[in-house]
Amino acid sequence: MRDRLRASITAMAGYTPGEQPREGEILKLNTNESPFPPSPRVFEAIREALTANALRKYPDPMGTAFRQTAGRVLGVDPDGIVIGNGSDDILTIVTRAFVPEGGLVVSPTPSYLLYRTLAELQGARFAGVPFLEDWTLPSPWPRPDANIVFLSNPNSPSGTSVSIGGVRRLASEIRGPLIADEAYADFAGANVLKLAQEPGSKVIVTRSLSKSYCLAGIRFGYAITSPEIARELVKVKDSYNCDVLSLAAARAALDDQEYLRKTCASIAATRVRLQARLADLGFAVTPSQANFVWCRRSDRPVRPIYEELKRRRILVRYMVYEGFGDGLRISVGTDEEIDRLLVELKNIL
Amino acid sequence: MRDRLRASITAMAGYTPGEQPREGEILKLNTNESPFPPSPRVFEAIREALTANALRKYPDPMGTAFRQTAGRVLGVDPDGIVIGNGSDDILTIVTRAFVPEGGLVVSPTPSYLLYRTLAELQGARFAGVPFLEDWTLPSPWPRPDANIVFLSNPNSPSGTSVSIGGVRRLASEIRGPLIADEAYADFAGANVLKLAQEPGSKVIVTRSLSKSYCLAGIRFGYAITSPEIARELVKVKDSYNCDVLSLAAARAALDDQEYLRKTCASIAATRVRLQARLADLGFAVTPSQANFVWCRRSDRPVRPIYEELKRRRILVRYMVYEGFGDGLRISVGTDEEIDRLLVELKNIL
Repeated sequence: MRDRLRASITAMAGYTPGEQPREGEILKLNTNESPFPPSPRVFEAIREALTANALRKYPDPMGTAFRQTAGRVLGVDPDGIVIGNGSDDILTIVTRAFVPEGGLVVSPTPSYLLYRTLAELQGARFAGVPFLEDWTLPSPWPRPDANIVFLSNPNSPSGTSVSIGGVRRLASEIRGPLIADEAYADFAGANVLKLAQEPGSKVIVTRSLSKSYCLAGIRFGYAITSPEIARELVKVKDSYNCDVLSLAAARAALDDQEYLRKTCASIAATRVRLQARLADLGFAVTPSQANFVWCRRSDRPVRPIYEELKRRRILVRYMVYEGFGDGLRISVGTDEEIDRLLVELKNIL
Repeated sequence: MRDRLRASITAMAGYTPGEQPREGEILKLNTNESPFPPSPRVFEAIREALTANALRKYPDPMGTAFRQTAGRVLGVDPDGIVIGNGSDDILTIVTRAFVPEGGLVVSPTPSYLLYRTLAELQGARFAGVPFLEDWTLPSPWPRPDANIVFLSNPNSPSGTSVSIGGVRRLASEIRGPLIADEAYADFAGANVLKLAQEPGSKVIVTRSLSKSYCLAGIRFGYAITSPEIARELVKVKDSYNCDVLSLAAARAALDDQEYLRKTCASIAATRVRLQARLADLGFAVTPSQANFVWCRRSDRPVRPIYEELKRRRILVRYMVYEGFGDGLRISVGTDEEIDRLLVELKNIL
């Protein structure tokens, strides 16, 4: 029956997520999870939601309670929020909404590899536009013809941000829409939430609770756009794409902005220290606005460093980008975790 | 920006799920949820999984522990199981895997309305093949050319089942694949799990935990196919489509087959009684193999009955099918709930 599959599916390799070792004590600095527990309010909310009636009945398909809380916290119209089973679900939804088979998906590169996968799944083409050397975007933008442009901002693996002005300019140079994937925005100094709310805006913002809210395990993300576009995106999502416990957890997490500020400030402080120490160890470190640091070196290959760290039970992400070379993307852990990493790196180098 | 959406999206109405009233005391017999709580083991498993480490880290993308349990319980190869965020997620995945834009999705009608929505989302055509009067399938099958055929079995809204022989014949008459949507199979006397495991089978079985396992709130479903096809379907799913608490709940639920048997037997007993009483009240009742009963009447319109029940705070599903007329689909509740329904029906009629 394999011959009945769409050719674009059999031809593709599929997205490979970062390693998720299930057993043994290992220091995971490879998938940008938070080293901190979620807010205590999240646990309370899940325990409270854990009733027979909640489990046996379908959840609210629109996530109304979550959207009201998020709208209040972020200062946006709840009717312009679309809930997702992780922000990957949202990225899938916008791709399916805007990109026809044979269409074109564009993203600056190097960036989140899933964008190409989403294009392949849709039977569409993918074109990467290389970042300039200082991690800004070329202007005029060479691919105004895309059905959709993804901008990971801050970007992975670089950790760099395109300025609000830069995002505004990109949006003005394309036929739209521009998906500003702000999975890491809580770790950065700025975001483009305001752009998404301007009348007729081409910018759709996507957010994740996996990183800054310490909730990768529960799968929750959302989009912020106009109510008009939100109504169309809702047609594309599975009716019940978010479960009752995740909805409760997500709402409680958004409601505890004090905890968010505290954990993000801690990550930012550790990030500064990690960057400085990596530079001392001879890495070329890109200044990061995210909860990870991208580092490369010209004097020796980094793959053996990744492998030796893994042997010592520390997992970082080794990444190669066509025409760009390779590097290590290291998630910012707790101070103790980063100390352990630095000790091992010193031993290895 | 609305003009940048795919035309097939703006043109479609979107799937309308059954009403989910959030407030007030109401007897919900409209979306085929179980009236029973989930197995006590489900609560234990969720409480056990509810740790900071589980929440902050990504879940196992393959759901290995769940698949091992399900494989053992069902007697199937775990490598042929694909996990889904509800079986709707699985139905989306198979559609995206097999149906190109402009392709053809076919299903017997009347049936689950989502199949048409999935075709529209993919920019594909949908064709319904009416069931014969006795709810069997026409042979030869008039649309062998479909990219995918969905068979809800037992079927909603009729509650009827196509026999294993009937499913085998349909599979032999189409180019494949045949998606046997067995969301209600635990309430029926038979299923086609065996067909899905035959070498080169065109049958892919999908299952849901929403109905028989009393877990609509946690969103979990899965597909059973060959390992070869499972590998391709995995490319289409979001990497982390199932969250850590749902995975734990689903595994615990499958592991408690005794509880499943008990609750399904109770539903079956109440179903028999409900069918008999509805017939006494003058409804034409289709004998059901599911956890709901489909009833119509020729002497008077049923929509006012639905509305009057709703006014009395009992929600059933009123459904109209083009070229087929309308009816009420009533979920089988507890004996007490069904007693209350029957009292009100008697008052209304």
